[in-house]
Amino acid sequence: MKESKAMRQDLVDVKELFKNTDQYTGRTIKVAGWVRSNRNSKNVGFLVVNDGTYFTPLQVVYSADTKDFDKLGSINVGAAVIAEGKLVATPDAKQPFELQATSVDIEGDSTPDYPLQKKRHSMEFLRTIPHLRARTNTFEAVFKVRSLAAYAIHKFFQERNFVYVHTPLITGSDAEGAGEMFEVTTLDLNDVPKTEDGKVDYSKDFFGKETNLTVSGQLNGETFAQAFKNIYTFGPTFRAEDSNTTRHAAEFWMIEPEIAFADLEDDMELAESMLKYIINYVLENAPAEMEFFNKFVDKGLIERLHNVADNDFARVTYTDAVDILMKHNDKFDYKVSWGTDLQTEHERFLTEQVYKRPVFVTDYPKEIKAFYMKLNPDGKTVAAVDCLVPGIGEIIGGSQREDNYDLLKKRMDELGMDESQYDFYMDLRKYGSTRHAGFGLGFERCVMYLTGMGNIRDVIPFPRTVGNCEI
Amino acid sequence: MKESKAMRQDLVDVKELFKNTDQYTGRTIKVAGWVRSNRNSKNVGFLVVNDGTYFTPLQVVYSADTKDFDKLGSINVGAAVIAEGKLVATPDAKQPFELQATSVDIEGDSTPDYPLQKKRHSMEFLRTIPHLRARTNTFEAVFKVRSLAAYAIHKFFQERNFVYVHTPLITGSDAEGAGEMFEVTTLDLNDVPKTEDGKVDYSKDFFGKETNLTVSGQLNGETFAQAFKNIYTFGPTFRAEDSNTTRHAAEFWMIEPEIAFADLEDDMELAESMLKYIINYVLENAPAEMEFFNKFVDKGLIERLHNVADNDFARVTYTDAVDILMKHNDKFDYKVSWGTDLQTEHERFLTEQVYKRPVFVTDYPKEIKAFYMKLNPDGKTVAAVDCLVPGIGEIIGGSQREDNYDLLKKRMDELGMDESQYDFYMDLRKYGSTRHAGFGLGFERCVMYLTGMGNIRDVIPFPRTVGNCEI
Repeated sequence: MKESKAMRQDLVDVKELFKNTDQYTGRTIKVAGWVRSNRNSKNVGFLVVNDGTYFTPLQVVYSADTKDFDKLGSINVGAAVIAEGKLVATPDAKQPFELQATSVDIEGDSTPDYPLQKKRHSMEFLRTIPHLRARTNTFEAVFKVRSLAAYAIHKFFQERNFVYVHTPLITGSDAEGAGEMFEVTTLDLNDVPKTEDGKVDYSKDFFGKETNLTVSGQLNGETFAQAFKNIYTFGPTFRAEDSNTTRHAAEFWMIEPEIAFADLEDDMELAESMLKYIINYVLENAPAEMEFFNKFVDKGLIERLHNVADNDFARVTYTDAVDILMKHNDKFDYKVSWGTDLQTEHERFLTEQVYKRPVFVTDYPKEIKAFYMKLNPDGKTVAAVDCLVPGIGEIIGGSQREDNYDLLKKRMDELGMDESQYDFYMDLRKYGSTRHAGFGLGFERCVMYLTGMGNIRDVIPFPRTVGNCEI
Repeated sequence: MKESKAMRQDLVDVKELFKNTDQYTGRTIKVAGWVRSNRNSKNVGFLVVNDGTYFTPLQVVYSADTKDFDKLGSINVGAAVIAEGKLVATPDAKQPFELQATSVDIEGDSTPDYPLQKKRHSMEFLRTIPHLRARTNTFEAVFKVRSLAAYAIHKFFQERNFVYVHTPLITGSDAEGAGEMFEVTTLDLNDVPKTEDGKVDYSKDFFGKETNLTVSGQLNGETFAQAFKNIYTFGPTFRAEDSNTTRHAAEFWMIEPEIAFADLEDDMELAESMLKYIINYVLENAPAEMEFFNKFVDKGLIERLHNVADNDFARVTYTDAVDILMKHNDKFDYKVSWGTDLQTEHERFLTEQVYKRPVFVTDYPKEIKAFYMKLNPDGKTVAAVDCLVPGIGEIIGGSQREDNYDLLKKRMDELGMDESQYDFYMDLRKYGSTRHAGFGLGFERCVMYLTGMGNIRDVIPFPRTVGNCEI
């Protein structure tokens, strides 16, 4: 064991104190963290110190016995401190223990105008300081849960031997025409080079062609599923949509598993297991954070999540769902009939009022779904599935893919697609085609669902929305 | 337990057969996969079937007892098949067991001109078919190891209670001026809107300002480290550099941990533990793939990796390293002297010839390092560290960050930086500043190091390099 000169070797995480309290009680230890509050009287003072490793903070008590006692009362909220002292059990107090400090060193002080004073701040205000808001209870909980949920997803798929594939972000194709795209270029916009016929001369661009930011990794993912059988992607995707809503961001993360030798039923079973796994993982690994959401953000959250984790998801075909919804058309802004796409109001009605749990809606009319979805024997619908959850609406969209070369080509012809861009995709139907399926989970919607947070801007560290790209 | 109509319920993964052979031997089972080869004589035939779940394929034997025997001989390489039959131990053969098929159903045939016939293909050729190359041994192994290495990284950090942060991809700042950037825009390049003074009118762009693809998530990561103490990023980064080398890609993934209440020593200990963890995880979880690399790609790979995992990394200051290198200046294209940046040839000489293991080089001249690195007491060098590994050179670059507001501002002034872009970053030094440190690991270089693959294009599913953005 080599000797370390590292700063950290003497420090104990607050998490450690709560997990292995017996081991530390009565011992002299050193804890570093940030001051959430500092209150004091003549003879004693209390620092609430959070070091980011645990949701519950540590109470540090200072008194006349503490070194430089007279200076500690003026430590500002937000300051970074290193406190040394004995950890003492406090069976009669709210917190289980406290640190009785022999010294409190100021690592870096804060100022009286620190924006996060101990009071309630509006979400709108906190959005203006994304570099600081993770220091509040709400955002500490949100971003911890976000991190755990991301890990739960990796864990779920890796335990099932899925291969994680990094599909490309910069793309030369428009994928599936799924949405408005951002262009990526190194051309000088002040002086765009033009060809003789006055068009942009993309041969001068970095890739020698027009390129965009991806809206989905699915088509690339399919190519790897035809090698590994089970794959998933987990990466950023982009939509340049001018929609200023609580559910849309220009940059967000998606999970797109793809499974070969599989049909729509396999797809739904995978989606259901995955959602349940994520929920259970987060409930187990962030109990304090989830209690916080349940109490302050979304009452009933934990019960609802347990309900989802413990029960089978409902299933209904689009056709049957439309029959149900049409009976309630008086309630909707957009009236439903067979062939119309379902709006969020319809989706939420189905999952919240009709089924009161998550529901898979399957077999949509081919006209309202993407070209690559497998045509059902009825010739009218495709093997698509949307998973709707209470409070959100659609959280997952998936399908069995058209694996028949001729049918896929026919559909692309009907839609007038530029097939030269899809040679690679057609190759998958020429060389060892398999029944296969997959889905996409919008990660931010998943985090909103897990936390009860109502605005996508509040579950992304540095959100990008139309007109907003700060820090 | 509800009854499933799913296609997969009857299928057994090849991995299962190898992991739990006893459980399946003598049983009738069904396996789906792709045909790697099909050889046959009058009375018997052999399909080598790989289903992507395991590196070693399954041998499927068909004979006159197999349904439609006379049709099976013409199954093309690349075809997807579903074979049913009894798993039989073959103690005298090369493979431990085989499937004696009662039926082989063709899920999707291939064609005689399938590009991946059973012969050696050049890497250059395989790069032209990124949608198919994962079906070869080499790329099956590469992308499996890539997936496992990615998971190992998450596992390492999550087990240590680090918070995974998704830093933004689209950015309004130029981060640290670390490299050439791609511009992101929704403006029509055929008709770029201009302001009255003839400049691009970015108020018309999606975000109302000029935006680029990020070159690093570090500065954003630092803001979260000052809330959570321990964070890491793992996401794509971009460089629009016109360098057509075996080690540069325009789009690649980076891991950037950041730790608060920590110094350069903590940083190095973290980097060393992480690299060792990844190596051990991959050696344990992909033994067949690693044997393959060791045999066919890079002889000595496994021994070298074990050597790294089992020994302490060397440490040397830049100043001492320069003294060593200057004695060998006759060997180098670029001559070394104090103040020059180290080139790959110098880095490899240090790690391969001098230390014969990974080495941390620390305390570089401030002039050749980034503005945010902490000034050492000597006033000349900064608390930077590069980790050099044999066969690659620099794999990790990190530093302790300048946490002193005045010193950081002074350095930015010296460099003539636009400080208005860095208000958020300066805030971290105003409100509870801590000693803190971090590093960046280029994920592709890490995968090259783990596999012995010599070209970055061969460790990325769909590589993006200058002039190349296919599929």
